[in-house]
Amino acid sequence: MTDQLRDGRLHHLLTLEGLPRPLLERLLERADALRPDALHGRAARGMLAGRTVVNLFFEPSTRTRTSFELAARRLGADVVNFDAGLSSTRKGETLGDTLRTLEAMGVDAFVVRHAADSALAELAAQAAGRTRLVNAGAGKRDHPTQGLLDMLTLRQCKGTDFSRLRVAIVGDIRHSRVARSDLHALRTLGTGEIRVCAPRALLPEPAELAGCERVERVDDAVAGVDAVMLLRLQRERMEDGLVPSLDAYFRDYGLTPERLALAAPDAVVLHPGPMNRGVEIADAVADGPQSLVLQQVSNGVAVRMAVLEALLG
Amino acid sequence: MTDQLRDGRLHHLLTLEGLPRPLLERLLERADALRPDALHGRAARGMLAGRTVVNLFFEPSTRTRTSFELAARRLGADVVNFDAGLSSTRKGETLGDTLRTLEAMGVDAFVVRHAADSALAELAAQAAGRTRLVNAGAGKRDHPTQGLLDMLTLRQCKGTDFSRLRVAIVGDIRHSRVARSDLHALRTLGTGEIRVCAPRALLPEPAELAGCERVERVDDAVAGVDAVMLLRLQRERMEDGLVPSLDAYFRDYGLTPERLALAAPDAVVLHPGPMNRGVEIADAVADGPQSLVLQQVSNGVAVRMAVLEALLG
Amino acid sequence: MTDQLRDGRLHHLLTLEGLPRPLLERLLERADALRPDALHGRAARGMLAGRTVVNLFFEPSTRTRTSFELAARRLGADVVNFDAGLSSTRKGETLGDTLRTLEAMGVDAFVVRHAADSALAELAAQAAGRTRLVNAGAGKRDHPTQGLLDMLTLRQCKGTDFSRLRVAIVGDIRHSRVARSDLHALRTLGTGEIRVCAPRALLPEPAELAGCERVERVDDAVAGVDAVMLLRLQRERMEDGLVPSLDAYFRDYGLTPERLALAAPDAVVLHPGPMNRGVEIADAVADGPQSLVLQQVSNGVAVRMAVLEALLG
Repeated sequence: MTDQLRDGRLHHLLTLEGLPRPLLERLLERADALRPDALHGRAARGMLAGRTVVNLFFEPSTRTRTSFELAARRLGADVVNFDAGLSSTRKGETLGDTLRTLEAMGVDAFVVRHAADSALAELAAQAAGRTRLVNAGAGKRDHPTQGLLDMLTLRQCKGTDFSRLRVAIVGDIRHSRVARSDLHALRTLGTGEIRVCAPRALLPEPAELAGCERVERVDDAVAGVDAVMLLRLQRERMEDGLVPSLDAYFRDYGLTPERLALAAPDAVVLHPGPMNRGVEIADAVADGPQSLVLQQVSNGVAVRMAVLEALLG
Repeated sequence: MTDQLRDGRLHHLLTLEGLPRPLLERLLERADALRPDALHGRAARGMLAGRTVVNLFFEPSTRTRTSFELAARRLGADVVNFDAGLSSTRKGETLGDTLRTLEAMGVDAFVVRHAADSALAELAAQAAGRTRLVNAGAGKRDHPTQGLLDMLTLRQCKGTDFSRLRVAIVGDIRHSRVARSDLHALRTLGTGEIRVCAPRALLPEPAELAGCERVERVDDAVAGVDAVMLLRLQRERMEDGLVPSLDAYFRDYGLTPERLALAAPDAVVLHPGPMNRGVEIADAVADGPQSLVLQQVSNGVAVRMAVLEALLG
Repeated sequence: MTDQLRDGRLHHLLTLEGLPRPLLERLLERADALRPDALHGRAARGMLAGRTVVNLFFEPSTRTRTSFELAARRLGADVVNFDAGLSSTRKGETLGDTLRTLEAMGVDAFVVRHAADSALAELAAQAAGRTRLVNAGAGKRDHPTQGLLDMLTLRQCKGTDFSRLRVAIVGDIRHSRVARSDLHALRTLGTGEIRVCAPRALLPEPAELAGCERVERVDDAVAGVDAVMLLRLQRERMEDGLVPSLDAYFRDYGLTPERLALAAPDAVVLHPGPMNRGVEIADAVADGPQSLVLQQVSNGVAVRMAVLEALLG
């Protein structure tokens, strides 16, 4: 993928793959420092005043778009939501022409969501030198801000030394950009043990699981871990015949209180949302004291502020 | 419904039912005082600076959403329009999870429109202690800011003593959240005489009309009144067979200049909009000197500012 | 059309037809002066603070709407996007009632796009005295800010004396509001020579081409000109049988490097976007050094700032 670094500094945020550990840790530290201002308060308001950020979403995602919109506004930037599904692209305009047109209007940064793995690389190859790109989820490959917010959440609960951390990732890893971004970050941070657990049809190519331990049964996967990272199961997996039924999935892979009890006593549970209750996760776990789901959401705003600040500040 | 008061102060605005008269009057007085700033000027800009208001609309309503958006912005708040029809709820997320997710992003207040009568109570039961809710129209039951703006409009023209006021409500009361909110407020303010007039199929349960006089013929309903409050007739009432035709409705219930002449000479006409001209109201009345339709709209912004200020200020 | 001038000053911007040359030139000069601030910087932020601009789009146009939104925000105005396709108009509300409702909410200016030629005149006839209207594209007749930005772009490259300028307009003139606005402005500025070139089925009534020279072959049209102004070909022209095929159109009218070489050596190429590459324009021209397409886009923001400032400042 097009290099996202220039002179050792972050120019775009396209992927967590290959992002140097010091850069990644600096982003997490900055996000942590911004957190009090991320949700309330006005201290950060002046940082990006006069800058324009466009949310360029080719796939709908109200939740992620809102998180980025709040992050940019709380830094004082102007934010425009450009619904690419309704726009000139539908009239046959190329991705590059849409990008250049918005650049010519004085847009400083683009937050892009797209169904294609390669969309961000394609945009980066055509972007003007001063333009900054943030990947808000592309294809099955990358969702770097989700990976960062997951790492920030783990750090806040488990400390900065990931070498002692045992993590289980459970669910549809094969189709998940969240899982891929988490795996890149967990490896970069030197996580002690990474277990993955999924139905065979939802496992990725073995090469993608380098450094991970594949575990068949979910009970074995969560046994003794410090964190369980769940993934959302898209209903279309069932329609595609990759999963027999939602009930069967819950029976075989759903995180119940009984299964969570097999993990370390202070184990935490992450889920990128929106949750399918009764599919990936039981209500009692989702709403229980070990769930970090809402902390993840809050961290999402702080992480996106840190990223926008790093690119535009 | 979940109590919207805490320590005698307004915590949410869910309904006008049971809202104590002093609180209701204080909101009206404050809205009246804000009116010069509500539409123009910048005096109120600092009041909610740094606060975030989300318009969470499960039913589309560009008009009401815009009124709330302008009210919140003119108080200096950040406003995000969260189109719930396009969002995670469609992906199977529960109402409560959507609420908690946005709370976790640092949203201070939610302006909610929903098709279900009980949606706001359900949200209030799950909301965090610091979250504030404003009902922007729910089911057939409540549209409290519409009720408030109608009362403000009546006050401005007829004075603060409602005991001498004779009011006729004409139209589809059975399906109208506007009518229910108006009735609650009119009763609370001690309105002298409240007449209701509607085709039999569009009347609510008798218990809902406590304290009102049911009048069969619209000529009798408007005779001598100080204010006629019209309701919008949804076209689906005709499709459902509750109304024979729009023409017949206009003939039997439409407010014409001739009918309005039966009211007090200085009688005023209210309509929540959007108007069906030639159905509920004749052009000459809609555009005539007794129509307060546009004053209602202007008051809507002021009332919503007063409500947001009371909740968040 | 309703007069857009009051006391010799611009009250609305509805059309470039009949706009006096000094007014037109003053807008261009002001836009040119605003350009550094138009895209970046905060100098202009205070100009329209406290003012409210509504984008009232009855036809979707993300690109033009975004340009107006950025222009208004960079002047400090509040901007609300009112998607008229989802609004009360769909519920049977008249255009006038929608206008008056938003006026009553304290909206100062409306940026309107509509499919009907006469929509803006109709709105102007009903608007309150203090309301300002900007035509953002109406029917086939007017797109005045596009005309202005095209003139600004020509001026920046060719100087202020249009009497020495030879311009060719190539494409679907008959259905183009851009072409009509360009023609009005080019005539007002005293352009030396205006050639038009289009398939017979895409030519307008002869009266509309007063002062222009109709040229059959595109090679003859561009020969020696200083500027080629291309128009977008809507795909529906082909479906309507007005154009045999996109390939045939490109062969007969597409601007290729070979054709452009027939123009003056320093000739420039304009296109309002979004471009159909390989239909109206070859890639090598679109991306070549003579293309001003992106400069047009940048000028669009500056021109819209100048217009809003002239109306509301």
